[in-house]
Amino acid sequence: MIPVGVSNRHIHLSQEHLAQLFGPQFELTVLKGLSQPGQFAANETVTVEGPKGTIENVRILGPARPMTQLEISKTDSFKLGINAPVRLSGDIEGTPGIIIHGPKGTITVDKGVIIAKRHIHMAPSDAEKFGVKDNQVVKVKTFGERALIFDEVVVRVNEKFALDMHIDTDEANAAGLKTGDHVELLL
Amino acid sequence: MIPVGVSNRHIHLSQEHLAQLFGPQFELTVLKGLSQPGQFAANETVTVEGPKGTIENVRILGPARPMTQLEISKTDSFKLGINAPVRLSGDIEGTPGIIIHGPKGTITVDKGVIIAKRHIHMAPSDAEKFGVKDNQVVKVKTFGERALIFDEVVVRVNEKFALDMHIDTDEANAAGLKTGDHVELLL
Repeated sequence: MIPVGVSNRHIHLSQEHLAQLFGPQFELTVLKGLSQPGQFAANETVTVEGPKGTIENVRILGPARPMTQLEISKTDSFKLGINAPVRLSGDIEGTPGIIIHGPKGTITVDKGVIIAKRHIHMAPSDAEKFGVKDNQVVKVKTFGERALIFDEVVVRVNEKFALDMHIDTDEANAAGLKTGDHVELLL
Repeated sequence: MIPVGVSNRHIHLSQEHLAQLFGPQFELTVLKGLSQPGQFAANETVTVEGPKGTIENVRILGPARPMTQLEISKTDSFKLGINAPVRLSGDIEGTPGIIIHGPKGTITVDKGVIIAKRHIHMAPSDAEKFGVKDNQVVKVKTFGERALIFDEVVVRVNEKFALDMHIDTDEANAAGLKTGDHVELLL
């Protein structure tokens, strides 16, 4: 069985964008650690603004990354008026941009808004146990009154990864899942 | 294949509640007909208020029904602060209530807030063709980049029903579906 982590909307910022939004030499402060080692939810948040609407209090996840990336749900995309594609994290070429407001500045990024494609993080030892490989697409069975079988789930294998299936809030709500619930990998 | 109808949040009102919210002898006016014969989206809307938040412009579906029932998504339930259960339409005993604001009055109902359980409307001839019965629980396969298989889908058979699978906005977003897409019934 695989634990579920529900990802609410969040943003990863580059060091340069972090400085533009929060001031030079600003460093994120840790609100809490995440399931993936070294990753954390920061105390800091930003406001994101699309053509049709604004969402406040978007949590920044740290540490800073090479590229700024905003991960939203399809529900959020309607509110913002942004036609965000379903993509794996990091795959942001050709994705829409957005306006980001921080306490010390506002920036407009020309790409980086995605709806995260559902995926399972796992270490090589987990992959061996499940009999799967990096980037393999698998099915995942959920349980309960909104039980379903997710298809199109991408396996991501890395020595730094802890076993965790990441879904967004739309997927969690549709399946009646919350963080800490367990699901079953189907081949 | 079965066409999909995505249900946004909406409310069914009893004649009594309609009068309290819009005035005596008020009659709903038709915005557009729905897939189920005789049912319509009204031009009129209400505002619903829960312990944690308010949602405006909640569409009324007509005609009036014996019991008032508010159908929301899990996403909406968080915004309102109401722990709504997943139920079939009409099964509202023991469900939470809510405050409803109309142009001529405000009422508090003591029950009726549900998250609609996903279901397929079909006529007896459809049921025969698919080999299913009223109230049978089936699986439904969807297609595309967010493909999945819904379990816990209830078949509802009635001579007045047109073939249509009803899902809410969380389910539509999680599966990448929109009204008019098609899905496959699995036994």
